[in-house]
Amino acid sequence: MAAELRANSQAFDSTAPLFDPRLFPSDFASRSGKIERLARKLAATAVLRDRQGGSAQAERQLLRDSGLLTLAIPQQFGGQGLVWPEIYQIIRYLAAVDSSLAHLFAFQHLQVATILLFGSPDQQRHWLSRTVHERWFWGNATNGRDTRLKLSRREEHYELNGSKSFCSGALGADALVISAPRSHNPEDRVFIVLPSQREGLAVNDDWDGFGQRQTDSGTVQFDNVFVDSSELLGPSGVSPRTTLRACLSQLILTQLYLGNAQGALDGALRYTREHSRAWPASGVALASDDPFIQQRYGELWLLFRSAQLLADSAAQRLQSAWEKPALTAAERAEVALAISEAKVVSARAALEITSRIFESMGASSTSSKYGFDRFWRNVRVHSLHDPLDYKVRDLGHWLLNGKAPTPSLYG
Amino acid sequence: MAAELRANSQAFDSTAPLFDPRLFPSDFASRSGKIERLARKLAATAVLRDRQGGSAQAERQLLRDSGLLTLAIPQQFGGQGLVWPEIYQIIRYLAAVDSSLAHLFAFQHLQVATILLFGSPDQQRHWLSRTVHERWFWGNATNGRDTRLKLSRREEHYELNGSKSFCSGALGADALVISAPRSHNPEDRVFIVLPSQREGLAVNDDWDGFGQRQTDSGTVQFDNVFVDSSELLGPSGVSPRTTLRACLSQLILTQLYLGNAQGALDGALRYTREHSRAWPASGVALASDDPFIQQRYGELWLLFRSAQLLADSAAQRLQSAWEKPALTAAERAEVALAISEAKVVSARAALEITSRIFESMGASSTSSKYGFDRFWRNVRVHSLHDPLDYKVRDLGHWLLNGKAPTPSLYG
Amino acid sequence: MAAELRANSQAFDSTAPLFDPRLFPSDFASRSGKIERLARKLAATAVLRDRQGGSAQAERQLLRDSGLLTLAIPQQFGGQGLVWPEIYQIIRYLAAVDSSLAHLFAFQHLQVATILLFGSPDQQRHWLSRTVHERWFWGNATNGRDTRLKLSRREEHYELNGSKSFCSGALGADALVISAPRSHNPEDRVFIVLPSQREGLAVNDDWDGFGQRQTDSGTVQFDNVFVDSSELLGPSGVSPRTTLRACLSQLILTQLYLGNAQGALDGALRYTREHSRAWPASGVALASDDPFIQQRYGELWLLFRSAQLLADSAAQRLQSAWEKPALTAAERAEVALAISEAKVVSARAALEITSRIFESMGASSTSSKYGFDRFWRNVRVHSLHDPLDYKVRDLGHWLLNGKAPTPSLYG
Amino acid sequence: MAAELRANSQAFDSTAPLFDPRLFPSDFASRSGKIERLARKLAATAVLRDRQGGSAQAERQLLRDSGLLTLAIPQQFGGQGLVWPEIYQIIRYLAAVDSSLAHLFAFQHLQVATILLFGSPDQQRHWLSRTVHERWFWGNATNGRDTRLKLSRREEHYELNGSKSFCSGALGADALVISAPRSHNPEDRVFIVLPSQREGLAVNDDWDGFGQRQTDSGTVQFDNVFVDSSELLGPSGVSPRTTLRACLSQLILTQLYLGNAQGALDGALRYTREHSRAWPASGVALASDDPFIQQRYGELWLLFRSAQLLADSAAQRLQSAWEKPALTAAERAEVALAISEAKVVSARAALEITSRIFESMGASSTSSKYGFDRFWRNVRVHSLHDPLDYKVRDLGHWLLNGKAPTPSLYG
Repeated sequence: MAAELRANSQAFDSTAPLFDPRLFPSDFASRSGKIERLARKLAATAVLRDRQGGSAQAERQLLRDSGLLTLAIPQQFGGQGLVWPEIYQIIRYLAAVDSSLAHLFAFQHLQVATILLFGSPDQQRHWLSRTVHERWFWGNATNGRDTRLKLSRREEHYELNGSKSFCSGALGADALVISAPRSHNPEDRVFIVLPSQREGLAVNDDWDGFGQRQTDSGTVQFDNVFVDSSELLGPSGVSPRTTLRACLSQLILTQLYLGNAQGALDGALRYTREHSRAWPASGVALASDDPFIQQRYGELWLLFRSAQLLADSAAQRLQSAWEKPALTAAERAEVALAISEAKVVSARAALEITSRIFESMGASSTSSKYGFDRFWRNVRVHSLHDPLDYKVRDLGHWLLNGKAPTPSLYG
Repeated sequence: MAAELRANSQAFDSTAPLFDPRLFPSDFASRSGKIERLARKLAATAVLRDRQGGSAQAERQLLRDSGLLTLAIPQQFGGQGLVWPEIYQIIRYLAAVDSSLAHLFAFQHLQVATILLFGSPDQQRHWLSRTVHERWFWGNATNGRDTRLKLSRREEHYELNGSKSFCSGALGADALVISAPRSHNPEDRVFIVLPSQREGLAVNDDWDGFGQRQTDSGTVQFDNVFVDSSELLGPSGVSPRTTLRACLSQLILTQLYLGNAQGALDGALRYTREHSRAWPASGVALASDDPFIQQRYGELWLLFRSAQLLADSAAQRLQSAWEKPALTAAERAEVALAISEAKVVSARAALEITSRIFESMGASSTSSKYGFDRFWRNVRVHSLHDPLDYKVRDLGHWLLNGKAPTPSLYG
Repeated sequence: MAAELRANSQAFDSTAPLFDPRLFPSDFASRSGKIERLARKLAATAVLRDRQGGSAQAERQLLRDSGLLTLAIPQQFGGQGLVWPEIYQIIRYLAAVDSSLAHLFAFQHLQVATILLFGSPDQQRHWLSRTVHERWFWGNATNGRDTRLKLSRREEHYELNGSKSFCSGALGADALVISAPRSHNPEDRVFIVLPSQREGLAVNDDWDGFGQRQTDSGTVQFDNVFVDSSELLGPSGVSPRTTLRACLSQLILTQLYLGNAQGALDGALRYTREHSRAWPASGVALASDDPFIQQRYGELWLLFRSAQLLADSAAQRLQSAWEKPALTAAERAEVALAISEAKVVSARAALEITSRIFESMGASSTSSKYGFDRFWRNVRVHSLHDPLDYKVRDLGHWLLNGKAPTPSLYG
Repeated sequence: MAAELRANSQAFDSTAPLFDPRLFPSDFASRSGKIERLARKLAATAVLRDRQGGSAQAERQLLRDSGLLTLAIPQQFGGQGLVWPEIYQIIRYLAAVDSSLAHLFAFQHLQVATILLFGSPDQQRHWLSRTVHERWFWGNATNGRDTRLKLSRREEHYELNGSKSFCSGALGADALVISAPRSHNPEDRVFIVLPSQREGLAVNDDWDGFGQRQTDSGTVQFDNVFVDSSELLGPSGVSPRTTLRACLSQLILTQLYLGNAQGALDGALRYTREHSRAWPASGVALASDDPFIQQRYGELWLLFRSAQLLADSAAQRLQSAWEKPALTAAERAEVALAISEAKVVSARAALEITSRIFESMGASSTSSKYGFDRFWRNVRVHSLHDPLDYKVRDLGHWLLNGKAPTPSLYG
């Protein structure tokens, strides 16, 4: 089975280009052969690995070796200093191939951003330089809805006890960004950075979602874990600017929805052209000449394009805000609302596209060997991160009452 | 893993009643403890078996033992002679638990109907009596789009050579209904009934869809298979009445969509009540008090109810037509159009319900152990049997131009 | 202009039958030539009267003369004693022609029902016999959201002061059903029946909605209006059975949505067949052969059929409840929920159908002379009577929490 | 009535700013007080004039006086030489106030573009300079589906005979752009420019659509109309660049849909805040705090934003193409497809927004005095200009088969 799946993936993936260039900015692939080479390697086993689930340590090593883990690190610390819109494009591209690995890749940059937003200049230099030199892959233990992790002050240091669930990327990470309440006020959170080998810290391999199957999103357990006070990022408290962390994160989710939608559309178009049979009542010889099949692709394309433009527009706004040394609450709200727009429309578009492509491919496309259902499963799982309902409500509240959405870990 | 899945299924399934009675006619469960006992047995392993795929011979034996395989056989041949609306209710109920086995169960009755519609009185008596006495489970090899199977006249008999794909229920069946062109005209099909042990007949275990995973829908191969002329059903040619076979089949598909929708709704409601956490911004303590969650269930319910009424109405019309000794083309068209209405609305409702329930359950519901994604996968695979597009077009053609849909193997 | 409009209506309406029989139960028109004759008379001027607005006293007289105002009055009081499902069919049929007059016609029966539900046996006999013998057309002043009307106890009698808005049918009515709080508790309402000529009672001609333009839904003003204590219906207080009044009312609204949808579909199908031109890129000679136009009619038909079955099913449930001498709260809830299902689905179907028909007719169909926009305007105005949002929420609340909807003036 | 309507419009319109700045680019109003002043004047009577229909010659004079009719004319001919994205913004803004006048305003620029695309350098200078100096308002007679107009060669000149329907802006225009076949080949069209006072040319006041009621879209009749050979634009034949005329036109339609959507959203938000009453079951005191009302505005906003970004993106692409001296067919196709995306999404968004706003305002908002239904009527009429179905199909055809849409008068 493995051989068949791999062969199949290659059949789909070895021809040039990897994707229909109309689904991605036209200059994208040519800009970076490095990214396309990585994507081809991930593609070769993506269907098989989706079926197997578990941790993809070999593929995480491919990411380390690609040199792409330093994209968000400023050049002054040895990184590549890309702007966020470019990083998001790369995340989306990889997600079209392998949405789990794209998630881990994206969260690397989120942890880097966390250090940039919350760390002191010394902390930034220390941790980001190490990230570059030691080729670190970061994981996280920051799930805000799981409040079982406690940080306790000891004489000169701190101690972590408890656990965190849904810790994407933690298994196999070199270092972790962890969040915990600094005090008894659960809203007064602090971010902590720790090497993952720290004694007392254990990462369970207990993630078993039906989608995003290789995100290593297990539970992390902390048993009297020593934390040096220098490992608490800060002292910067919460400000409109630091709350951009949640904005960055929400727009990462958005890219993963769009990437899955692109991967699904690309694969489906290819399948319809190469394999689908015309329906007898259609009166045409080729499925690709069926007016209803053309219409459906047109409709799915409209969903995709609307989402794509909203996501790109939101990324530009986020970058503008990122570049400002300080941010008003109103400026922050505009970024958050733009990202909410993009997120809701993208999640819905991706759910619809990944479910409806089959109607343009036909029954044979549901063979497990193609793995076409993984796109829907990925989007379905990932789009439950936090409810879209309240994003939509926030937009209406803002329109009606001028109410800015309350910054939180979810946007 | 297996133990965990089984335990979990039991947690969901052992409490009384098996389903929320509001999702099924209120007198249904009480009417037949036998059906509910069968459903409970299937439920105990349904999530696990969905994951494993392959052939469910033990569960097929449960169906044989249940005595429910003779529901459609007239009492004069030893069967139970239920009307189609009742049979459809039972199919739907079982589909809410295990859509693959419900498919095999339903197709048993379709093969019985084929013998009733196309067989001579002697053939009816012969094959249906044997079905009762030998507790036969029928499979089929009738896929109309696969034209590789040829029937050749030999001196006194016939011979089958070639193959048929998508032969649901063939693997493990006691007998098969097979279709093949009687002559060089592919439209001049004849139905053939054969015991599945006939020499030269081989059923491959090569079904690997991502949904409906245990429908045993493999390829059947025929290598010089002897066919006695008495095994050709007939001589009845095609008439409006015999084309009810396709109507019966299309309404079976419809029940499977609805059954999955019911299973999904039932499980989701239970999960939301028992496990979902209220979202912080909702301002309520229980997820089940969240206005947007209530609204979503209301919306999904409206989709379900519309489909349910159309399906029940179509079943009544079908039964009326079934009871007529002869049928005009116009009467047949009315049945087919009513079933098309039910099928399209049910397929769409089921796709929407099985995808959107997660938004009312939250991220934790995507753990593979619950298997909640199987409902969408089942509906997605099954609703590609033949394209809905042309059903919708047929309705418009009839409204605008009074054009009756052309009878075919697909409705 | 008036002549042109009238001529045009006749062009559309004088051919037999008035409507495509597939849009209405097949035996309906033949069952009652009386109804069809009335409908044809209303149709002849409907487009013109929609444009003019104002009160349609001549057409109200047609309704009086038709003998159909006594449909809901029991035979023992000289009425015709039809069951509600039949009455609803007639309302729907008339609404396809003239939704304003159908509203007034329907509310006649609602006021009759009010007397049957709340009146003492003597009051029933008195008011309903007079309705029959004096051919009364009833109006109402019962808008529950307008709390400006006060009922005051005087020595032996009562007095009404204040006003009520949205009093459909009041202008030109022979008698009125009025609601007012019996005491300082606004929930303790009493229904009052008064001849409309009672001194101090004035009906303003101030309704000017953009749809339902001839419903005479003006404001009624009460200036020291004498009310005899025998004119207070009662003493029956609120019980599950009396709250069926709101159910009856909600299902009337539903019929009006469906009637407009039917009228719109019927007119559009005719227009497409007779007037629409094929689009050059379609490759067909007739618009009615365009696959996308056929598809759209198929889609609109699916919306209509779903709503129609829900409405008919709800009417059956309502009739069953109506026939019971007493009703439990749970039985009442089932009726209310079934009606909510029908109402929400019908309102949405009607909005969609009345807006989208134009896409199958083309630009020329927007000429004012055809009046095709009146269907959307009627539905849009009428479907705002009370918000659908809370009907949907109620359904979810019931599914999740078993909560019966609270009886109110709105269902 | 007129006074009431005018007063009401002022109540809605006299406060600053005219529109919620969040619905328009934030710098728009400040950039041009001239545009806002014009918009306020149009707003003062828009509801009344919508009701009256007919020709708005006084308002056309306001447009002439505004100096905005020369926006698209290059500075070398005395015009203002704005880029198309800016002109489209102004069209959209005016359409939010008065969609009929915005149409006439927009088509002025389309006729200017026609002269720029098809005219020789001398013709451009001659006609555009006259347009500036004589403050001409252009109309058109170019409806491609009406083939009754014939151009005949006489000795030294040409002659026009026949008629054209749907000639927006013709009534009251100073000059007309007319299209007619140059020969017996109906595809070999030529554009002709004529002063509207030319003998034999008559414009009927026969437009009576239920929306876009003041677009003066009557029939133009030609009776032996003399045409000098210099009045035939050319000799440039059809090239990818000249087919941009249809692209320009399609993107004008798009702006009108968006403008109506903006006007509807803006008015509805204001109405909900100022007039809507909270529904009793909502449990909140203000309608603007109702979660379902907030949600609906959020949903409508998402529709609007998606359309807005697609339209703005398409305008940028169109401008890029416009600035190129020559264009390949592939480049032209990219522009046309981007505009199709924007047009389809905008038309649908606008239909939905203009119909559903009422659900957030409530029943009282349907009073004719507010005229809120005019937004839906405008969009409904205008979006039938040419069918969206084939735009969607074209997108799918391009995705599946790489097929560029065939240039036509409709895109």
